Amino acid sequence: MSVPLEEVRAWDAADPLGDFRGRFVLPSGVIYLDGNSLGPLPVSTSARLATAIEKEWGVGLIRSWNDADWIGAPARVGAKIAGLIGAAAREVIVADSTSVNLFKLLAAAVRARPGRRVILSEAGNFPTDLYVAEGVASFLPGVEVRAVTREAVEASIDASVAVVLLTHVHYKTADRWDMAAVTARAHEAGALALWDLSHSVGAIEIDLRGCGAGLAVGCGYKYLNGGPGAPAFLFVAERLHAELRSPLSGWMGHAAAFEFSDAFRPAAGIERFLCGTPPILGLLALEVGVDLALQADAAAVARKAARLWDLFAGQMETRCGGHGFQLLTERDAARRGSHIAYGHPEGYRVMQALIARGVIGDFRDPDVLRFGITPLYLGYEDLWRAVETLRGVMEDGSWRDGPSRATGRVT
Amino acid sequence: MSVPLEEVRAWDAADPLGDFRGRFVLPSGVIYLDGNSLGPLPVSTSARLATAIEKEWGVGLIRSWNDADWIGAPARVGAKIAGLIGAAAREVIVADSTSVNLFKLLAAAVRARPGRRVILSEAGNFPTDLYVAEGVASFLPGVEVRAVTREAVEASIDASVAVVLLTHVHYKTADRWDMAAVTARAHEAGALALWDLSHSVGAIEIDLRGCGAGLAVGCGYKYLNGGPGAPAFLFVAERLHAELRSPLSGWMGHAAAFEFSDAFRPAAGIERFLCGTPPILGLLALEVGVDLALQADAAAVARKAARLWDLFAGQMETRCGGHGFQLLTERDAARRGSHIAYGHPEGYRVMQALIARGVIGDFRDPDVLRFGITPLYLGYEDLWRAVETLRGVMEDGSWRDGPSRATGRVT
Repeated sequence: MSVPLEEVRAWDAADPLGDFRGRFVLPSGVIYLDGNSLGPLPVSTSARLATAIEKEWGVGLIRSWNDADWIGAPARVGAKIAGLIGAAAREVIVADSTSVNLFKLLAAAVRARPGRRVILSEAGNFPTDLYVAEGVASFLPGVEVRAVTREAVEASIDASVAVVLLTHVHYKTADRWDMAAVTARAHEAGALALWDLSHSVGAIEIDLRGCGAGLAVGCGYKYLNGGPGAPAFLFVAERLHAELRSPLSGWMGHAAAFEFSDAFRPAAGIERFLCGTPPILGLLALEVGVDLALQADAAAVARKAARLWDLFAGQMETRCGGHGFQLLTERDAARRGSHIAYGHPEGYRVMQALIARGVIGDFRDPDVLRFGITPLYLGYEDLWRAVETLRGVMEDGSWRDGPSRATGRVT
Repeated sequence: MSVPLEEVRAWDAADPLGDFRGRFVLPSGVIYLDGNSLGPLPVSTSARLATAIEKEWGVGLIRSWNDADWIGAPARVGAKIAGLIGAAAREVIVADSTSVNLFKLLAAAVRARPGRRVILSEAGNFPTDLYVAEGVASFLPGVEVRAVTREAVEASIDASVAVVLLTHVHYKTADRWDMAAVTARAHEAGALALWDLSHSVGAIEIDLRGCGAGLAVGCGYKYLNGGPGAPAFLFVAERLHAELRSPLSGWMGHAAAFEFSDAFRPAAGIERFLCGTPPILGLLALEVGVDLALQADAAAVARKAARLWDLFAGQMETRCGGHGFQLLTERDAARRGSHIAYGHPEGYRVMQALIARGVIGDFRDPDVLRFGITPLYLGYEDLWRAVETLRGVMEDGSWRDGPSRATGRVT
């Protein structure tokens, strides 16, 4: 049964996270359901970056590496992210991109499990995860990537597997792995497990320590609202620090970078996974987003995310049923992330028409519409209206005006 | 003989590059001789980043990947840098850090020369170059890094060498390799040559095509004034594109990233050396610095750099002779870069005292003072005054007040 507008307004009025909306810049006339791809701009990012640029860089110049603690930013922001994912502060660091961090940890993991030659992953995993695994395998003689169906993953963890590489929440369907169970299964078999948290960090509760996880990477520009191409992070459980060595042994991972010695000696802790000079502007923008996420109660965020999701799914059923949308995401809140995906044979055109009316979701080949559900800046009325707008697009036939997939550009 | 102040003022008045100084933010009371470590802030960077943050990210949101051409930024800024280093536009791309780009190209080069097992470099090369080479070698069975003295490099290029890795201008001494000669020597021996341009790009004339160079990387935050931790660039001569494959096969290097297919298929051109999502804020800040460099006549920059250098060296001799400074840089303008280095047994304390008086250079272990000579924003009078300030510090003994090396922090 459809929920009346007055009711969702009442939910918004009682929302304990309602204050957060004002801390983001959101253009008028837009309902933004693509925060799972690029999070919106926090209000305080502009001022923070202006200070970084005009004062720290402009006036402080080279001195700001020490005086403004630029040099400490990767560990400082990493420690903050640790608070969002159930890790210890010294287990997380911000560096490079998700893809580069995947390479570091996959390569280190495979080398830490000599005799085991398989990187096991899921067919249809986020492409860069599979591509990077392929890159690692192409370097290490005899190593191979085995990408099996989702259903076959757990049964495929055997004594040949060095590392299991999975995306916690699937980028397309939003289906969520049981991190504790799969990690335990991998460890029992003597393998490591590497979790890509890109589609879950900042959106759902994550407890890496509680799950016994050893390795993870994640993205800064989605639910952490760190800005376009924000640096990524990596997690290595402390018990693995000494055992794992990054192949990307750049100077910032050295035990004493400013000794300028010829031989590489890895830092003792998580800093060994740094490589080049840290990207300060991106790091400081990311820090603003992370600080915002830390101010929200994680359990409240997860609760609201689930309720927003249920509202959206329910309204889709009652208001857009019969228009050919096929729910692709698991309904059980414990088995999904914070976006919702529908298949539709005309998905590309439908999404273009919807975006033209100010409801921004996105599209993924071949026929998937994704809607990001982000509790910090979305209210119940937003989702209610989004479904009504979609209904309008379907009922008045305006979706037919959009370009076909072949001529459109998609990111 | 010392040059009188009136004379250097006349040189400044006649300087064809004099206008550029106003395009940089330079704090009052500071003479900035560390642009070889972190270039200063261009005046227009603040506004460009404010637009990127508030309009492109804040309002455009995900749409800006297409509408603001964020997706094209790595190739666009790369093409601009190509104009500074004698490369074709399609041979340069901006991505990641210098260290990560070194890994990509070193690994690709070694794999492209099967049977050759040596990465040849110079002992005392910039540490990250050696560390990354070590990281590559640790992955590829049988591959080794051979770091020989500068004098022995050319004679060591034999049939065992896959790739010669050299920094065009030495980070410490500023000594410059003859790029054309060494490249030719490497190619004759069947090896590749990889040039690290970090300490030369934007400071001296570089003609990669004229030198027959195949591979190069370079830094965005020194003479390109791209900001702290700015993204780096890489150059691969077009003739090598098809032959070389990056081990860091992330999604942005795919021939069709947005197909989201499971198998990696490298892009045909320079884009194959991209890895993860590009760092947009850093890229756009770098673009401002590169645009500024492109507005200056490269020959005029090189001429002024040489004249500034000669003034500084001459004044050091006449005004600070007898204070124990030992010139470490080649005097011949064709055999040096754009900074000047002096050894001094109390170098650390001397530099701290100098910085306290507003003349910012830097220090490198064990006893090296470096002064960056950057023609776009330094005038002759700046260098004249810098030497006078150093003389004052030496003569009044105030350098003795500084912390000893052991207690200071250096970046």
